[in-house]
Amino acid sequence: MPDKILDDISHRRYNPLTDSWLLVSPHRTKRPWQGAQEAACYLCPGNARAAGDTNPKYDKTFAFVNDYSAVKEQQPDYEPDSKSNDLESMLLKAQSVKGVCYVLTFSPKHHLTLADMPAPEILPVIEHWTRIYANHLSSSNPLAKLADNLEVSLPKNEAPVPKDEYRYMQIFENKGSAMGCSNPHPHCQVWTTSTMPEEPGKELVQMTKYRANNGGRHLLEDYVKLELAKEERVLWQNESFVVVCPWWAVWPFEVLILPKRHIRSLVDFKPEERLHLAAAIQEVTRRYDNLFECSFPYSSGIHQAPLKGTDEEIENSYFHMHFYPPLLRSATVKKFLVGYELMAEPQRDITPEQATARLRNCGGELYRNNLK
Amino acid sequence: MPDKILDDISHRRYNPLTDSWLLVSPHRTKRPWQGAQEAACYLCPGNARAAGDTNPKYDKTFAFVNDYSAVKEQQPDYEPDSKSNDLESMLLKAQSVKGVCYVLTFSPKHHLTLADMPAPEILPVIEHWTRIYANHLSSSNPLAKLADNLEVSLPKNEAPVPKDEYRYMQIFENKGSAMGCSNPHPHCQVWTTSTMPEEPGKELVQMTKYRANNGGRHLLEDYVKLELAKEERVLWQNESFVVVCPWWAVWPFEVLILPKRHIRSLVDFKPEERLHLAAAIQEVTRRYDNLFECSFPYSSGIHQAPLKGTDEEIENSYFHMHFYPPLLRSATVKKFLVGYELMAEPQRDITPEQATARLRNCGGELYRNNLK
Ligand SMILES: O=P(O)(O)O[C@H]1O[C@H](CO)[C@@H](O)[C@H](O)[C@H]1O
Ligand SMILES: O=P(O)(O)O[C@H]1O[C@H](CO)[C@@H](O)[C@H](O)[C@H]1O
Repeated sequence: MPDKILDDISHRRYNPLTDSWLLVSPHRTKRPWQGAQEAACYLCPGNARAAGDTNPKYDKTFAFVNDYSAVKEQQPDYEPDSKSNDLESMLLKAQSVKGVCYVLTFSPKHHLTLADMPAPEILPVIEHWTRIYANHLSSSNPLAKLADNLEVSLPKNEAPVPKDEYRYMQIFENKGSAMGCSNPHPHCQVWTTSTMPEEPGKELVQMTKYRANNGGRHLLEDYVKLELAKEERVLWQNESFVVVCPWWAVWPFEVLILPKRHIRSLVDFKPEERLHLAAAIQEVTRRYDNLFECSFPYSSGIHQAPLKGTDEEIENSYFHMHFYPPLLRSATVKKFLVGYELMAEPQRDITPEQATARLRNCGGELYRNNLK
Repeated sequence: MPDKILDDISHRRYNPLTDSWLLVSPHRTKRPWQGAQEAACYLCPGNARAAGDTNPKYDKTFAFVNDYSAVKEQQPDYEPDSKSNDLESMLLKAQSVKGVCYVLTFSPKHHLTLADMPAPEILPVIEHWTRIYANHLSSSNPLAKLADNLEVSLPKNEAPVPKDEYRYMQIFENKGSAMGCSNPHPHCQVWTTSTMPEEPGKELVQMTKYRANNGGRHLLEDYVKLELAKEERVLWQNESFVVVCPWWAVWPFEVLILPKRHIRSLVDFKPEERLHLAAAIQEVTRRYDNLFECSFPYSSGIHQAPLKGTDEEIENSYFHMHFYPPLLRSATVKKFLVGYELMAEPQRDITPEQATARLRNCGGELYRNNLK
């Protein structure tokens, strides 16, 4: 066996064939069957959770540490076996990953989704994201100063945070059973890790290169300018944000929400920008639901400045939000990213411009409300 | 609109955020609904296909050009708009992709899968792969000489191949509806493109770097040696091949078939090695089915030397076959690679060593045969 400890600690392993890392959570095998869900929703106010805690009677959002986190907060260090030879250190590489995984509900109401919530009701979610992010900023991060003056109400229910421990915070939502979500109560997850994950890591490298080669301009700042001028992939905009099906979209109705000015992270937002982001999220999710008249599945995620990093990394970061929805033709026909996509290269059928045109036509009232 | 032509030709678009490409097949939107399948299987011998052709009464394998190929053989060239400015050429990058997509059945029998077929019955599949690959080799490829002396029977049913047009051939199988396969008749696909796809491209770069830094040794040659010595991830082997759950496996029961000697591509195989590969494929697929006593879904794919490339690229290539199966705990509980995995980094629960131990215990007769 490899170092026994790798059977118990959260860690990353390196793939030398693709020069990339993956996260391994062996301790998660202890979590109960996904199918075996309690009769009462463990996300509703006042209900009991798996580990025995009881949720408060919250009236907006509520965050708690996942009872089956993919990463551990406390664990022994990992040092590769000192007897390991050269080959092993090149081809069987691993590193320890510490972190916290939070679950964050969007509302006390069990059946609401973001598509059902008007922008002012989504605002507390964004404030809560902002506070969790601010709480985890390393003290060496230049953004930490902004965090001290945040005009958002502080959620009291997070555990104390070990300062300077964490490198990145990934906020994401899996919506719908097609995207592996087993509880319909609207919620997202927030995973914080001591290592920089692959995707935001790659983006940061690219944004850094672009800035260095283009007189200090930001890649996404230029991209926003270009898309606003071309219009063909712009599906909606307000004062602060533009929503596009990006040129390089992989998923059939993939969407990117971009701020019109350079925003590094949630703590850079002005109060009205938080409301504008809420409006953009509401637009995207409502249009998604209207497209095939169903509760549209997707995974969404926010990329922003790392919690800990060089001043240059923080400055090169450009806040944005991705939506990856699997449906292609109807509520039941999805695009499978499988054989060719996994082995060779992602492949899409409709163009992003066609997807934009379809989503532009899906504005107006949420279809469910019209049916009432 | 971007260049109108991008609505009609198969092309790739560049993602500057991740420095990667994706394939776009706008013409595929013309293909009929996946759900709307003919009553009679279009892969069975003697039956009619969508485009009106009739399948021959084949008795082993049968290949034909997909009636709805993702890439086109003939199409106008694409030249980026000459009026485009600097920003556009950096951020809205595309290139034309030509190619052919074949479908290849494994057997005339509609309900057989590789798990049901003894190695000698799988052999014709490998011979057919070899012949299609050989047929498409660029005349400048040093492997083309070997192709002239192949001891495999030549399938007569492929269309004539434009020589020197294609850069890479991706052989892959999607098995099971969970992996987007809608026809249970056992078959794989073979997509040939004028461009190098992302995944084998990344691997080739890594294998090249490794060789340069390690005295000419191959990355996968060293990896085979290491895994054979360590044993903990070896689930099966014969004279010519070893089957491992690789150190860096992402999918719960991901498997890699590796030759024990340096084989660049299918045309390097000795006749007995083709049978040994057939035996390895049979072992993997039978053990998969035995694991949860079901027809185990997966996507598999072969990576090998490009059809066209520098002598160095051909020499640095090391044949291997990946299996990516989605099931985690049972015939119905799969691992979803969704929010965190898509936005941040792949995440797995059981370790590859645990997966190996499970699959080692799944040898013996195919469970279905015991039930008879
Ligand atoms: O070509 P098929 O079998 O119709 O389609 C299947 O495999 C393709 C290649 O991996 C994918 O692009 C499709 O999404 C999938 O449904
Ligand atoms: O944490 P959950 O909701 O139980 O699990 C879901 O999201 C995770 C993060 O994307 C994935 O690793 C799981 O495969 C998926 O089922």
